[in-house]
Amino acid sequence: MLKATIDAETFRESIDAVAALVTECRLHVDEAGIRTCAVDTANVAMVSLELSKDAFETYEAAPEELGIDIAKMKSILGMMSKGDLLSLNLAEGSHRLELSFGSYQYSVTLLDVNTIRKDPSPPAIELPGKVDLSGSALSSAIKAADVISDKIALGIDEKAETFFMMAEGDTDHIRLELGRDQLIDIRPAEARSLFSLDYLKDMGKVMARTEKVRAEIGVDHPVRFLFDLADGNGHIQYLLAPRIEAE
Amino acid sequence: MLKATIDAETFRESIDAVAALVTECRLHVDEAGIRTCAVDTANVAMVSLELSKDAFETYEAAPEELGIDIAKMKSILGMMSKGDLLSLNLAEGSHRLELSFGSYQYSVTLLDVNTIRKDPSPPAIELPGKVDLSGSALSSAIKAADVISDKIALGIDEKAETFFMMAEGDTDHIRLELGRDQLIDIRPAEARSLFSLDYLKDMGKVMARTEKVRAEIGVDHPVRFLFDLADGNGHIQYLLAPRIEAE
Amino acid sequence: MLKATIDAETFRESIDAVAALVTECRLHVDEAGIRTCAVDTANVAMVSLELSKDAFETYEAAPEELGIDIAKMKSILGMMSKGDLLSLNLAEGSHRLELSFGSYQYSVTLLDVNTIRKDPSPPAIELPGKVDLSGSALSSAIKAADVISDKIALGIDEKAETFFMMAEGDTDHIRLELGRDQLIDIRPAEARSLFSLDYLKDMGKVMARTEKVRAEIGVDHPVRFLFDLADGNGHIQYLLAPRIEAE
Repeated sequence: MLKATIDAETFRESIDAVAALVTECRLHVDEAGIRTCAVDTANVAMVSLELSKDAFETYEAAPEELGIDIAKMKSILGMMSKGDLLSLNLAEGSHRLELSFGSYQYSVTLLDVNTIRKDPSPPAIELPGKVDLSGSALSSAIKAADVISDKIALGIDEKAETFFMMAEGDTDHIRLELGRDQLIDIRPAEARSLFSLDYLKDMGKVMARTEKVRAEIGVDHPVRFLFDLADGNGHIQYLLAPRIEAE
Repeated sequence: MLKATIDAETFRESIDAVAALVTECRLHVDEAGIRTCAVDTANVAMVSLELSKDAFETYEAAPEELGIDIAKMKSILGMMSKGDLLSLNLAEGSHRLELSFGSYQYSVTLLDVNTIRKDPSPPAIELPGKVDLSGSALSSAIKAADVISDKIALGIDEKAETFFMMAEGDTDHIRLELGRDQLIDIRPAEARSLFSLDYLKDMGKVMARTEKVRAEIGVDHPVRFLFDLADGNGHIQYLLAPRIEAE
Repeated sequence: MLKATIDAETFRESIDAVAALVTECRLHVDEAGIRTCAVDTANVAMVSLELSKDAFETYEAAPEELGIDIAKMKSILGMMSKGDLLSLNLAEGSHRLELSFGSYQYSVTLLDVNTIRKDPSPPAIELPGKVDLSGSALSSAIKAADVISDKIALGIDEKAETFFMMAEGDTDHIRLELGRDQLIDIRPAEARSLFSLDYLKDMGKVMARTEKVRAEIGVDHPVRFLFDLADGNGHIQYLLAPRIEAE
């Protein structure tokens, strides 16, 4: 059972963050809020989303697992206007989720959760290097690398206390270095790992308008991006596996 | 013979309304103004346009039938800027229509009217339910339905005095209900008919910026949309045949 | 050797002007500035660019010939923001050009100049008719002609002292006439030549935002477009061969 109202923009951002990686997911609903965790089909990237009940205007729920067609949800939410209030309604035992906003009422049949991959258990990796920066700086760096390559190295220069990203094309090379004054914060540690730009581009689009993104990196380890929404009542986490650097 | 000047925007809107359904038409010119009526190739939708001489800045004409390549006209008019004054000139007995605006002078050879379908006679159907609403509300409803289906039901809930539209996808459902306070006016009557979204989308784009559209509906009958332009000196009418509702 | 800084916008405009015709070029660098001259693969159009050292914020160079991948350069420069200062660095004897702006550092391997066509010698044609007009007027005229044809005649009506352009489609015709009051200046002379719109469209996009373009035309002769950038410290010239007018 779910009976809740939420700011349209907040819910849309949440769904968009998940839609960057998967087309369907299991949405867990309980008294505390909603959450999901999903891995892309290639097992390379993971997204987890948590929206606490405080992110909602009104919220009432009993524990349940909902099979969500993320792609369809995204196009329905695309019809909402800024400032709209979205009502979510799922009756006890029902398989139809009602979404209302403005004068619209959508009724969406839920997917059978058994046809959707089980939630992965988010790996508890400790990544030593931590950088806080604006989402737009991160997104620009990803776009700049994309001009000449299909992969990008993210790292920290421990001595210089800078966050760097590097990409190599067949004949070209790009390096971006951000120091303390261009970052929100940095906790230096030896770190440098290589990632596929394909995934980063999709994540970058989602994070572009986020004020603060925490990036956690290690040496040939995954990268973790963490950011908030709904005034800190929502949390999104991306985890992306590294690529093996060709020698 | 035709010798007239008209606000560029007004003429462009008129041509765009016709271009939503057909690529060529017979334009009837006489002392009272210009008008056309055309049916799409599948015989499902009809558009009729009337621009009285008062919609023009200056107007002088003798009765004539002009074969217009609507698609080409649309791209020429696309070159005009807002505020431009368009001059239309067709000499007695000539087959070349001159269009001038700004420093531009286009000369367009008319199509042979005999190669263009005769004007249909607009059917004199009386449709009992009548709703006046903003073009943007109508256009949004059409877009919202398009997310989950390829057809839409339009109707009136006689008791509730609401205008509704409903669409069904394979597993989903959308319903929009507009009451008196969201409509400009409503004359309730039992009404509910099903229409193809393909046609409605094209019409919806044209009507999106119109302040007031009159929609007339019945039970398994066509829908008629009526709206004005040029301060009431121009009238456009769309008529769309219903689809048979699958049982 | 090259060590220079320049306003991002100025350099981007320069490269865009060259990119309209060719994908690679030889860039000549010396104490006085940089310049290039290139002909498109079909030998129909030529572009020449000169940026004097005064167009740069700082400038230091020894004579050298650089093989530039214009297409790649264009996408890298697309990452720069308005107001950015671009640093160009090529060490003595090196084949890697370093471009830095903001926190970004691109390193681009130069092409082997021997694989790039030699610079043409710009033909010293004297074209009698000269017209100064805004780039936006020129660009609009080109777009308007493109609606109905793939070629355009540019000319001067010597008696009326007007600059005209004409295009003929299979059945249609457009004529644009600009008099003294719509031009910046005109030096009338008998002139009328026919050109391919394919080339003019690409040039038109580049010139659209230019305040003043000088167009030089003759009778069945090439057209030359000249315009400045960087407050007169940069000069661009397009030369386009005429098409033979079918009788």
